[in-house]
Amino acid sequence: MKVAKFGGSSVASAEKFMKVADIVMADQERRIVVVSAPGKRFKDDVKMTDLLIALTNQILTGNSYAEEFKAIIVRYKEIADGLKIKSYICDEIAENLQDIIDTYKEDANRLLDSVKASGEDNNARLMAFYLQSLGLKAQYVNPKEAGIFVTDEPGNAQVLEQSYRELANLRKREEILVIPGFFGYSEQGNIVTFPRGGSDITGSIVAAGVKATMYENFTDVDSIVCVNPTIVEKPKDIKEITYREMRELSYAGFSVFHDEALHPVVSQKIPVCVKNTNNPQAPGTLIVAERDYLKQQVAGIASDEGFCSIYVSKYLMNREIGFGRRLLQILEDEEISYEHTPSGIDDMSIILRKCQLTNGKEERVLERIQKELKVDDVKVQYGLALIMVVGEGMTSSVGVAAKATNAFAEAGVNLELINQGSSEVSMMFGVKETELNKAVQSLYKAYFEQPVSALTL
Amino acid sequence: MKVAKFGGSSVASAEKFMKVADIVMADQERRIVVVSAPGKRFKDDVKMTDLLIALTNQILTGNSYAEEFKAIIVRYKEIADGLKIKSYICDEIAENLQDIIDTYKEDANRLLDSVKASGEDNNARLMAFYLQSLGLKAQYVNPKEAGIFVTDEPGNAQVLEQSYRELANLRKREEILVIPGFFGYSEQGNIVTFPRGGSDITGSIVAAGVKATMYENFTDVDSIVCVNPTIVEKPKDIKEITYREMRELSYAGFSVFHDEALHPVVSQKIPVCVKNTNNPQAPGTLIVAERDYLKQQVAGIASDEGFCSIYVSKYLMNREIGFGRRLLQILEDEEISYEHTPSGIDDMSIILRKCQLTNGKEERVLERIQKELKVDDVKVQYGLALIMVVGEGMTSSVGVAAKATNAFAEAGVNLELINQGSSEVSMMFGVKETELNKAVQSLYKAYFEQPVSALTL
Repeated sequence: MKVAKFGGSSVASAEKFMKVADIVMADQERRIVVVSAPGKRFKDDVKMTDLLIALTNQILTGNSYAEEFKAIIVRYKEIADGLKIKSYICDEIAENLQDIIDTYKEDANRLLDSVKASGEDNNARLMAFYLQSLGLKAQYVNPKEAGIFVTDEPGNAQVLEQSYRELANLRKREEILVIPGFFGYSEQGNIVTFPRGGSDITGSIVAAGVKATMYENFTDVDSIVCVNPTIVEKPKDIKEITYREMRELSYAGFSVFHDEALHPVVSQKIPVCVKNTNNPQAPGTLIVAERDYLKQQVAGIASDEGFCSIYVSKYLMNREIGFGRRLLQILEDEEISYEHTPSGIDDMSIILRKCQLTNGKEERVLERIQKELKVDDVKVQYGLALIMVVGEGMTSSVGVAAKATNAFAEAGVNLELINQGSSEVSMMFGVKETELNKAVQSLYKAYFEQPVSALTL
Repeated sequence: MKVAKFGGSSVASAEKFMKVADIVMADQERRIVVVSAPGKRFKDDVKMTDLLIALTNQILTGNSYAEEFKAIIVRYKEIADGLKIKSYICDEIAENLQDIIDTYKEDANRLLDSVKASGEDNNARLMAFYLQSLGLKAQYVNPKEAGIFVTDEPGNAQVLEQSYRELANLRKREEILVIPGFFGYSEQGNIVTFPRGGSDITGSIVAAGVKATMYENFTDVDSIVCVNPTIVEKPKDIKEITYREMRELSYAGFSVFHDEALHPVVSQKIPVCVKNTNNPQAPGTLIVAERDYLKQQVAGIASDEGFCSIYVSKYLMNREIGFGRRLLQILEDEEISYEHTPSGIDDMSIILRKCQLTNGKEERVLERIQKELKVDDVKVQYGLALIMVVGEGMTSSVGVAAKATNAFAEAGVNLELINQGSSEVSMMFGVKETELNKAVQSLYKAYFEQPVSALTL
């Protein structure tokens, strides 16, 4: 049994719905379909989710929202018309949306969450109706019926353990089940959306619950590529990658698949396959528990700009038990999230995203550091970029670091930072933002363009 | 004006006293002489400091301490006889010591500190007397008279700022001044010894106070060498090294010169020269504020065994603001000192010396980590060694890391840890203890045996 999730661009129009139907029909194992809200049909289009947010804002002003409401129904209708299916489905969609508005309009947070969720919900109804019109035994299943139970905070659903037991019942169903992504129901009966990763997470939770043989994530690219394609032209595809590698790469900027969405399937070791709705024959990228990494040790190179470092030095810092903890306390008090803390004998740096230091935080933090920690020197340096070289078995292989540092040297790039040793699947390097592209290009060449043999590094 | 400090082995016997006199007479600038207590004359000899500790212990038992007392006086007498100087100096020494005992025997801490300090004090009296017997204008100066004022905690003297102003007066003195190392006087009038670095620190404080042109530290080796001589045979001498480089190397195990002893001279930029009492012609090692590092970028390679790492992993660790701080808090509560904290997205390691985890600390820390931080995994890995490659300008030079990582790869050594970026003068690597020697030998070859040209890395 496979769970196939289709992202926004894959369900944005009638033409895309037809492709989805072809994909579903191509493999009998595809018995559960998770859908997103209709995405952009073209570059400057407006996503359904944004139309729904606009609708909510208008409702909350107390003025007429008829126009925004109509724009939404028209979107669904355009798809229905293109599919030549009966338009009463759009009347049902309109009623459904009005119900939600009437139920929640006194509670701004709940209203927003439920209205947003209707994007996925109604698209799932539309998809089920369409598949039925093709003669398939297909059934829309509401998340409450499916058993996707979550915590109750609007916009911040965390799945509850019992969901998996409930979802297991779906295995007995014979029809193709169409489930909307992005939301679940709290024990109190409220619709609650997931904070990040939207429908990716629903697909993952359902796949874990039904113990699927595979979770297919359909999007609009053939595969995940191994490096940022704006830095390296036509980079190689990733054929196979492990969960851990995917997590590290996603964190550092690979945005095809939200890394947190993987979590539910990891313990079940359910493979995930990222595929292209527009080219379903292409093998895609397989995300698995383990892979044979001897042939291609490095899975990918992730990079991101916009980091800075707070450098602190104090003679005999290393003798002051508690110094590091007190420095981190200052950051915590300001609710600052940091990435790394390389330290020496008399100095320590905090590497963080510069966006963490807005709203006067930088001044306050520097002042507290001076005053409370009585340091000899404290300074903030901007313009830092981080590069992660990600791959299984990296930390137990001789020469992997050498390959990377040689690539930097060859590109004439100075390394501001090297951090290896905590993660078993990645090495991190810091360079000046101005040198980022050259550094990444050189690493790509070293890891993906050299001839590979079992004996080379 | 130069300050010349002589370590224990350099003032252990009559023969050594004669060498000291030759050295003092060889340079008219050597106007202040700082002496340690007599050290070992041969491998299994007992240092004066240890005889004094034995004396103190015996006094504190309340029994007769005549034998221990005699052993101490005999040591001084042997030196005096060898130098053919009048033996009444030894009577003065005996009286001095008895005075201290009578004054402090009710206060165990003060007794220990003062008795220990008498080792240096009496040796300084002996040295001054000897130099006078050679016709030199030499004068013993007690630290109180010199102006070495410190805080009052026994065994933990911290120099007070006014000392430097007082010491400046010594410039006006015309004689050669002989000052005992290792202790100062508190404002309350007590003798208090320095916690670490003994006479090295006295020499440094005096040199800073008199604004000496140089602080010469006489010991029993020609120079500081660039790597542990038990790992690499006949390693190269270090001709010139900066204060920062010396600090890093000392911390990691270069024990010729206590790194904290440098601190008083650093702000004055007084050069320090480590020389051999037995071969004063050899140029020694010069420790300076800055050096031209283009020709020899790496000053030295320090290494040490006996480290371990506490590895902690938790899914979404990076989203938990305060996680790192709470982990450090657990260590702080147990008064554990750590070295480094490499961290990844979902994991973090604490690198520390294994001796920090004795007395049940490991169990308690692991339990608290599990319970309070609710981690997915926590484990301690032993058998780690750390290597520091130290050199100015390291972090602003392309290719320095590459040279090191290549050396490791060539030796077939896997890198467990790499930490570069906090200190401007060092890079740290972690390897298994079993691979340490091989790794260090390979680094030595890369940095000290390759032909050097301005263009190579």
